[in-house]
Amino acid sequence: VLTNSETKLLHALKSRAGREKHSAFVVEGVRVVEDALAAHFDLNFAVVSPTLEDSLRGKELLDYLAANTAVRRVSDAELRKLAETETPQGVIIVAKTPRKNLSDVRLSSRALIVVLDAVQDPGNLGTIIRSADAFAAAGVIALPGTVDYWNPKVVRSAAGSSFHVPLVSADDEQTWAWLRTNEFLICGADMNGSNDIPSANGRIALVVGNEGAGLRKQSRAHIAHTLAIPMPGRAESLNVAVAAGILLYELTR
Amino acid sequence: VLTNSETKLLHALKSRAGREKHSAFVVEGVRVVEDALAAHFDLNFAVVSPTLEDSLRGKELLDYLAANTAVRRVSDAELRKLAETETPQGVIIVAKTPRKNLSDVRLSSRALIVVLDAVQDPGNLGTIIRSADAFAAAGVIALPGTVDYWNPKVVRSAAGSSFHVPLVSADDEQTWAWLRTNEFLICGADMNGSNDIPSANGRIALVVGNEGAGLRKQSRAHIAHTLAIPMPGRAESLNVAVAAGILLYELTR
Repeated sequence: VLTNSETKLLHALKSRAGREKHSAFVVEGVRVVEDALAAHFDLNFAVVSPTLEDSLRGKELLDYLAANTAVRRVSDAELRKLAETETPQGVIIVAKTPRKNLSDVRLSSRALIVVLDAVQDPGNLGTIIRSADAFAAAGVIALPGTVDYWNPKVVRSAAGSSFHVPLVSADDEQTWAWLRTNEFLICGADMNGSNDIPSANGRIALVVGNEGAGLRKQSRAHIAHTLAIPMPGRAESLNVAVAAGILLYELTR
Repeated sequence: VLTNSETKLLHALKSRAGREKHSAFVVEGVRVVEDALAAHFDLNFAVVSPTLEDSLRGKELLDYLAANTAVRRVSDAELRKLAETETPQGVIIVAKTPRKNLSDVRLSSRALIVVLDAVQDPGNLGTIIRSADAFAAAGVIALPGTVDYWNPKVVRSAAGSSFHVPLVSADDEQTWAWLRTNEFLICGADMNGSNDIPSANGRIALVVGNEGAGLRKQSRAHIAHTLAIPMPGRAESLNVAVAAGILLYELTR
């Protein structure tokens, strides 16, 4: 059974302020919990409900959790109330937030970084993290105004990639200075940009903007190269996560 | 004020069964409502709340609605209760569902069709419709098991593209026969496929599968060419809407 302070913590972790105060976040669902465990994140405790034991995979996960952290058992209905996503699949873990700085990003001579310029939808952010991981980005940088990496919906749509790619939050000044110092070609996704994709033999930062407003003025000032995706059809723009995916694909070819 | 039967209809339209029974659907939010009106969909009635009049754009939309259909006024709180998406922005319209058949799809010698093989997340479906529109697809075909085109979340994430691209629902038999008769090269998005993208000088159907299970066995039997996206990183797969976007981009280059 959950202690009072654990219940309070779980509720506090539903907000960004709570996650920052406690340096912890919640992971929900069998697959994403497995990925978090594989990445050896520091565990606080786990909450499970009977549903988890419906499958062999769930039983194995429970055994692993029982051997490695405190496991609290609740009913399926209680777990759903504690969870933020619709299908927690009988398991939630509370883990310590990994705080990554720009200096934690390991760069080789060829490197790809995704910079998030106020991306606001949790599903879009998670999907971009998943694509950044698929295309071997060295890191992701969130500028102010971007939704929290450790929002449970972001973690869920990142499908485990949150635990593979360094996720850094930094302000404008730090970010642009770091990219300049490390000789990145700074590219921005922009419908009015060029269709020429720069060759990927070097360090490239791809800046993607807000769902409605696009790139901010203060970001545009730092962008050397704007990239547009040719669209022969009628839609005026693509979803930001789709646009980011296409450009990451192009930049890594 | 809403009549009793209008309130009942709005609630009925929250479910797929209700939308099918009444051949109607709900559009929410200023931008998407504008797109629906521009496409001259048959209107049933509109529901507005004071928020709509906060902007000039909203006022203009209200004037247009008042001149063209019955407008019901409710409070902002009531409108939010009637709406399915989180930010209806003071406006909802009820419109007649356009029922498109395979014979409504206009084909030229070069044509692109997206086939949805049990795509289940409304956000993913809407995003794929938006990409299909951006890359000038001639139509979208939903096989059984795919989420309803006229689910408000689908319409919202399609960002107006639901009103540009013919959206057809058809069963397996009809779909594969129609594609064969019309000499489509049938390609399936599949992680284990080839990386060779066929040239786009002809008719191509891109089949995208379910978020978890991928392409169904019965679909695989009809696919001539499976396409994989090279992923140098760690993520095992991409989000289905991102994968579809990348392949549509590649197929229209």
